[in-house]
Amino acid sequence: MPRIDGERLLADLRRIADFGRYQTGVHRPHLSPQDIESRHWLAGRMKEAGLVPEIDGVGNVIGRSPKTGPRVLIGSHTDTQPRGGWLDGVMGVIYGLEVARALSEDPSTAHLAVDVVSWADEEGHWGGMIGSRSFTGLVGEAEIDAARHREDGTAMRDALKAAGLANAPRATLEDGRYRCYLEAHIEQGGLLEASGNRIGVVTAIVGIYQYKLTFSGIQNHAGTTPMPIRKDAGAAMMRVYQQVMERFPALAGPRSVWTVGRLSLEPGAPAIIPGKAEMLLQFRDADVAVLDRLEKCLEEIVAAENARGPCTVACENPRRTMPAPMDERLLESIDEAAEQHAPGVHMRMPSGAGHDAQILARRLPAAMMFVPSIGGISHHFTENTEDADIVLGCQVFADATARILTRN
Amino acid sequence: MPRIDGERLLADLRRIADFGRYQTGVHRPHLSPQDIESRHWLAGRMKEAGLVPEIDGVGNVIGRSPKTGPRVLIGSHTDTQPRGGWLDGVMGVIYGLEVARALSEDPSTAHLAVDVVSWADEEGHWGGMIGSRSFTGLVGEAEIDAARHREDGTAMRDALKAAGLANAPRATLEDGRYRCYLEAHIEQGGLLEASGNRIGVVTAIVGIYQYKLTFSGIQNHAGTTPMPIRKDAGAAMMRVYQQVMERFPALAGPRSVWTVGRLSLEPGAPAIIPGKAEMLLQFRDADVAVLDRLEKCLEEIVAAENARGPCTVACENPRRTMPAPMDERLLESIDEAAEQHAPGVHMRMPSGAGHDAQILARRLPAAMMFVPSIGGISHHFTENTEDADIVLGCQVFADATARILTRN
Repeated sequence: MPRIDGERLLADLRRIADFGRYQTGVHRPHLSPQDIESRHWLAGRMKEAGLVPEIDGVGNVIGRSPKTGPRVLIGSHTDTQPRGGWLDGVMGVIYGLEVARALSEDPSTAHLAVDVVSWADEEGHWGGMIGSRSFTGLVGEAEIDAARHREDGTAMRDALKAAGLANAPRATLEDGRYRCYLEAHIEQGGLLEASGNRIGVVTAIVGIYQYKLTFSGIQNHAGTTPMPIRKDAGAAMMRVYQQVMERFPALAGPRSVWTVGRLSLEPGAPAIIPGKAEMLLQFRDADVAVLDRLEKCLEEIVAAENARGPCTVACENPRRTMPAPMDERLLESIDEAAEQHAPGVHMRMPSGAGHDAQILARRLPAAMMFVPSIGGISHHFTENTEDADIVLGCQVFADATARILTRN
Repeated sequence: MPRIDGERLLADLRRIADFGRYQTGVHRPHLSPQDIESRHWLAGRMKEAGLVPEIDGVGNVIGRSPKTGPRVLIGSHTDTQPRGGWLDGVMGVIYGLEVARALSEDPSTAHLAVDVVSWADEEGHWGGMIGSRSFTGLVGEAEIDAARHREDGTAMRDALKAAGLANAPRATLEDGRYRCYLEAHIEQGGLLEASGNRIGVVTAIVGIYQYKLTFSGIQNHAGTTPMPIRKDAGAAMMRVYQQVMERFPALAGPRSVWTVGRLSLEPGAPAIIPGKAEMLLQFRDADVAVLDRLEKCLEEIVAAENARGPCTVACENPRRTMPAPMDERLLESIDEAAEQHAPGVHMRMPSGAGHDAQILARRLPAAMMFVPSIGGISHHFTENTEDADIVLGCQVFADATARILTRN
C-alpha cells in the first residue's frame, strides 16, 4: 500500500499559497499574474514527480505519466475565488501530485499511471469550468473568443496571450486513456465537522436550477400615489419570495437548498415606488425529480402572482445543471480505503457545490472525496482544514487510487 | 380683480424649460450650469416685473417688491429632479411672477406687494430644501461646509464659488414682513384627475417617517449550507417586509402610504447566502397619531423578528418629518377663488410630497394649491399638465392672493 508523505504534501500546499497570498488565504483568479506563476511552479513540480507537464490553450496544467499501466486522471483546480481560501481547489491538485509520487515510490504500485490536472477557471472568472469543459469537448473557439473577465471585462484571448498561451493547443480527453477521474476537495460546508466525520464520500454532485425573476410595475412618487392604485414591483417580488419560502419546505428533499442571493429594485430611491425589481433564485438537489418538483412549484407561484396582479412577473433565463451521480464502484473503493485509515469516521454525502467532476462524469466514471472544512467556512480567506485531516485525506485518496487501479 | 396673462405665463414656463431641456422634460439639478443660467434669467424677469432681484449665498433667487402695501411671499423651486419634468417646482415660481405682474397691472390691487422666490435645492441634490431652511434660519455654516453633491461628491462650497456666489450673503426671513407664504405646485399624483377636479386646496403636507432596517446573518455557500443552520439575512428582510405589508393596512389612515424604495443584499451573488441585508422603509400621513401607530407596529415587527431569529434586525437612523398643517383662513380664501373660477371642480386634499411650504409654515401662515398632473406622473421627463389647467390655476392663485392681501 502506498504511503503518502504528509510533510511533502503540506509543504507543497504552503508553497503554492505564496502565489497570491491574501491574509490567511489566497487571491488567485484564473490567468492573473499570480495564477500564471503558480501554473509554471506546478508544472515544475509535476516534472520533478516524473510527469510530463503541459500548460494548454486555456490554462489547464496537465502532467502525464509516461507509465503504461492502468491509468487514472486526478485533479481539481488551482485558481481561487477573489480573496478566497488556500485549499479550495488546490488541495485536490496537490493530492493528485502526492498520490502520483506515493504510488511511484511503492514497488507494489510503481507501475500504476497517474495523470494530474489543474483545471482552468473552475471559479468562473471567465465563464465557469472552462478548463474541464474544454478538455471534454464542450467549449468551442467562439466561446473563448467571446469570454470576458466578469469584473474588468478583459477579453480572455488577451489574457491568454499575455500569459504566453496564445498558440498553445487545447488538450482534449483521449478515449480509453483513463479508467476514471478522481477529485478530492474540501467540503465547503459543516456537515463532516458537525457529525464528527473526517472523510466524505461524495455520492453525487447536486444539480442547480437558477432563475432570474423580473417584476414589472409602474414607477411613481412614494408620497402622492395612493396604496390602492400602486403597481409596486418590489412588493410583488416580496410576495413571490415569501411564497417560495413558505411552499418549498414541503416539496424539498432532506438536503435540498434554495437561495435568493441577489435582488434589486429600480430606481432604488427611498421616495420612489419601484417600477422594476429583479431576483435571482436558485435551488439545488442531487435528485432531478426534486428539482423538477420545485421548478413546478415556482412556476405555480409565478402564475398565481401574474393572475393576482397588479404587476407582472417573468421567469427568465433558467439555467439548469443536472445532478451528476458518482460511480458506485469507485465510491466502494473510497469507502474501503476510508474504513482502513479512518475507521468509523467517514460518511457518504452529496456535494452541494459544483465541481469539475460533474463535467468529467459525462465522459468517465468519476468520484469525489471530501475532507472537513473548519466551521464550514468557504469562499473566504479564513477557510481552513486541520493539517491532520489534510494528511489523512490524502492517505485515504492514495489508497483508494491504488485499489481502483489494481482492482479488476 | 387681477387678470393674469395666460400667454405670458406659458411663454415664461416654456422659456425657462430651455435651461437643461431633456426630451420633453428638464434636467436642472441645483447649481448645475443650466440651473445657474436659469437663475440669472429669472432674476432678469423679476426685474422686468418691477421687483428687485437678489441671488443669495445658497442660490435662492428672491425678487422683492418695492411697494409698501400688505405683503405676501410666493414661491417654489426652479431646480429639478434628474431628467425630471418641466413644471415640478418652476410652475409655482412663475405663478408668483405672474401674480406680481397681474396685481401690479390692476388698479384695484396695484398697491399690494408680492415678493417672489425660487428656493435653492428643493430636490435635495445637496441636502434637501437648503434654500427655504437657510431663509428660515435652520441652516448653519457648518452644514453648507459639509454639504456634498449626492451623486458626484462635489463640495457645495466649490459649486457656489463656481456659480459666483461665494461671497453672496444668505437672505433671511425678516420678522413681520409677510402676511403669509403661498406656494402652488403640480399635484404629482392622480387624485385631481381621477376625481375630475382642477384645483387642489392643500390642507396639510404629510409627515414622513423613514427607517433603515439592517439585517445581520451569516454569509455562506448557497450549495453546502443546509437550510436548518442558515442565517440568511435576505430571508429575514423578506419576513419583515411581508409583515409590514400585512399589518399596516389595519392601522393606516385612508391616505397613508408606505414604501420600500431601496433594498440590498450583501454580497449579492447568486450562490452566496446573504450575510447582510438593508431595506429603506418610509411611511407618510398628515396625522401624527397615524404615523406613531405605524412606527409602533414596525417596532413590534422588528422585535418579533429579533425574538424569532436566527438573524438580528436593527432599525436605524429614523428620520421623522412632522406633518405641516396649512393655515385654515388662507385655505378659505383659496377655496373662494377656486369656486369663483372653477366652480364645483376644486377639492381639499393633503400633499403626499414634501414642499418648501412645510419649512415656511414653521414661521409664517402658509398655504398651498395644486393643479392636476396628467396621469399622475411625476419625477419623470414625461410629467405634464394641460395648458388650460396651468392658466386656470394661476388665475385662481392670483385671485386668492388678492383676497388674502385685502382681507382684514
